[in-house]
Amino acid sequence: MADYNEMWKELGMNLEEHDKLCEVLPQAFGDVFLTQENRPEAMDYYNFVIAEIHGVRPKELIEHKKNGGKVFGTFCIYVPDEIIFAADAIATGLCGGSQFWVPGGEKVLPVNTCPLIKASVGARLDKTCPFFRIADMYIGETTCDGKKKAWEILAEDVPFYVMDLPQMKRRKDVTAWKEEIEDLKKKVEEFTGNRITEESLKKAISLINEKRKALMRLYNCRKQKVLPISGRDALVIMQIAFYDDPERFTQMTNKLCDELEQRIEQGISVVKEGTKRILVTGTPLAVPNWKLHNIIETSGGVVVCEEMCTGTRYFEQLVDETKVTLDEQIEALANRYMQINCACFTPNEARIDDIIRLAKEYKADGIINLNLKFCNLYATETYKVERELRKEGIPVLSIETDYTDSDSEQLRTRIGAFIEMLGE
Amino acid sequence: MADYNEMWKELGMNLEEHDKLCEVLPQAFGDVFLTQENRPEAMDYYNFVIAEIHGVRPKELIEHKKNGGKVFGTFCIYVPDEIIFAADAIATGLCGGSQFWVPGGEKVLPVNTCPLIKASVGARLDKTCPFFRIADMYIGETTCDGKKKAWEILAEDVPFYVMDLPQMKRRKDVTAWKEEIEDLKKKVEEFTGNRITEESLKKAISLINEKRKALMRLYNCRKQKVLPISGRDALVIMQIAFYDDPERFTQMTNKLCDELEQRIEQGISVVKEGTKRILVTGTPLAVPNWKLHNIIETSGGVVVCEEMCTGTRYFEQLVDETKVTLDEQIEALANRYMQINCACFTPNEARIDDIIRLAKEYKADGIINLNLKFCNLYATETYKVERELRKEGIPVLSIETDYTDSDSEQLRTRIGAFIEMLGE
Ligand code: SF4
Ligand code: SF4
Ligand code: SF4
Ligand code: SF4
Repeated sequence: MADYNEMWKELGMNLEEHDKLCEVLPQAFGDVFLTQENRPEAMDYYNFVIAEIHGVRPKELIEHKKNGGKVFGTFCIYVPDEIIFAADAIATGLCGGSQFWVPGGEKVLPVNTCPLIKASVGARLDKTCPFFRIADMYIGETTCDGKKKAWEILAEDVPFYVMDLPQMKRRKDVTAWKEEIEDLKKKVEEFTGNRITEESLKKAISLINEKRKALMRLYNCRKQKVLPISGRDALVIMQIAFYDDPERFTQMTNKLCDELEQRIEQGISVVKEGTKRILVTGTPLAVPNWKLHNIIETSGGVVVCEEMCTGTRYFEQLVDETKVTLDEQIEALANRYMQINCACFTPNEARIDDIIRLAKEYKADGIINLNLKFCNLYATETYKVERELRKEGIPVLSIETDYTDSDSEQLRTRIGAFIEMLGE
Repeated sequence: MADYNEMWKELGMNLEEHDKLCEVLPQAFGDVFLTQENRPEAMDYYNFVIAEIHGVRPKELIEHKKNGGKVFGTFCIYVPDEIIFAADAIATGLCGGSQFWVPGGEKVLPVNTCPLIKASVGARLDKTCPFFRIADMYIGETTCDGKKKAWEILAEDVPFYVMDLPQMKRRKDVTAWKEEIEDLKKKVEEFTGNRITEESLKKAISLINEKRKALMRLYNCRKQKVLPISGRDALVIMQIAFYDDPERFTQMTNKLCDELEQRIEQGISVVKEGTKRILVTGTPLAVPNWKLHNIIETSGGVVVCEEMCTGTRYFEQLVDETKVTLDEQIEALANRYMQINCACFTPNEARIDDIIRLAKEYKADGIINLNLKFCNLYATETYKVERELRKEGIPVLSIETDYTDSDSEQLRTRIGAFIEMLGE
């Protein structure tokens, strides 16, 4: 890895603590990813991005800032990247997926908070993640209790803007979300000093749609009987989608898909016949949270789809590109984003329809329903999710876990037994 | 106690289970309340209401239903009772405050859910509370993750209407709440078959305002150096306010206040000089949750104020009675309710101002900040609440507890030490 120490120092990072993270991450990545056989060659790019995760992309963002650009950090897939890119700014995902950051979050947050939130707050306050240092402004949202209240604490440390996401999906709520996007536009224009025009928004909408299309292509490959890519590899690509340069990401992902589609034609699968196809659903898996996929894929299963924010929720709907006025474009954005089915909405029955539909499309043998500990939203949905899947005759296993490794063996036992049961 | 078995049976209750509750409640009430010395005579009324808690008021509600009236159950102090009473219907609080109902809730909800929600759901599904049986329609709200999602499950068992409470307090949010109240009005009119008129709403606003004024009078008595009533007694009165007939409740509470004001004049205090005055703040204490007050008041302290929904948040603001058109009246309702400072809003700094103001008004020696386990909203606010109180030099002890008795001894030790420290 190149030497980024000078850069990290300039970012005001806690180098001593950060070194500890740098020591364990490559090992973890190696164990989970590089041990896989028969990986697509085009995974090299993503390997590189992860190997240099705190170096190469941060360097680009700093370059952008040196040229007068702004960087916005986001935490949720409802926040429309299009607005940010349309103002010549860059959006980068800031969700924390490592236990490393959790104790830092617990200094100010209740222990009974979901690890995603604790890690995100810890990564900022402990100064151990360059992305959290680089972002000039954070854009939060009122999605869940934990995040909504955590923002109040983070806002004392960094410029913070909160979008108010509706809790229902009536017509008036879509309109309210449109207004929130308009307010965000004003905020971003003010903060960057750049005007968002019909032209620039059109370009940004197309930019992000292209990324979505590349991900759709990737996921379509996973629907095939001949499975050309593992779930772990697909997951890390999804995770990288949140902070990589969108244009390059799209290009590299399309290149990967060329290879995958060729593999399908040639009948090259990464798993042997009889490997059980698992769809995972639930709370997001932020980088570098690979625990679940790793266990599944070393227990006789393979993950074929994630009904998650780090998964289908991120890309399944496109923004209508036929709109020309700013008002119509923003309305198209609101319409698109309000189609995401997150448990923060009530009711959210459409998510269950999604799971059932995806299970069919991806030919899943079984479903693992994941909940990050203390996420009450998804945990409460488990009751109906399980019931409706049983009605459909789709086997489901619900698990609740956090970022620690303390339950790995227990999870391995339960997941192993579940997958074995699928074979009977 | 009169024999209500026939009535309970007609309500479809689980009598066997319910009997168990009936066995323990009088004992608990006796232990906590009847052991107090020098109680105001007018407490007799509230003693009676609690002694007959599942009998006398349910009987009245059933009578109302037999005459064609409707009963609405509510869970949160943002839901405007005025609209319900204006349609000749009755609103009754449905918050569960006993561990008795928790296991029933845990059958369908995550264990990591606040006990208030689990108990409320359990009381319905286990058929062990007449109020939950009697209510023809429940009115929930989107206040916290736990409730928002629990309603989806309860709605499968009982007619359910959900009000969408805003999460911020900008001008447009107050307008949105006004619209929600208008929608509620339509719903209630439709469900009851009764029209809400300017006249009937005016009367209902006055009815509930009078109740608030009586509670203000009660709480004003608690501000005095000569303390004429214990915290336990004040708390149970607050709890009864949620389901008693408002007119009678107001009358009885004013009668009690006559006695209390006389006591103040005569210098009759329920506690001896030097007893530490405690303000409690945090999550609500639904009936029959008397644990905290009981521990405080048997450990050298006395509770002088609750900055809680079962406390000042319930009555501190009045609805403007000068408005004449329905539109203006509803706007006045929206304005009033949006002044409540619940942790479900972001930001909610005004709550901290409230706590500091109340601590002064009620001459509190210290503050106990209570959190019901798994309430992430109030738990996260603890960080700033503690910090700001320290800045003000007001001693604060934060505790987190549920409805079980397993931590009583530990709480007693911590609270005892805190109160002792206040004396130094
Ligand atoms: S789970 Fe919901 S709140 Fe969390 S990132 Fe996804 S859409 Fe946003
Ligand atoms: S997993 Fe749940 S609790 Fe955690 S940030 Fe997402 S919605 Fe909130
Ligand atoms: S704490 Fe908040 S959500 Fe709960 S009853 Fe009170 S106002 Fe409603
Ligand atoms: S105490 Fe907290 S978690 Fe429980 S119902 Fe009230 S706001 Fe919700």
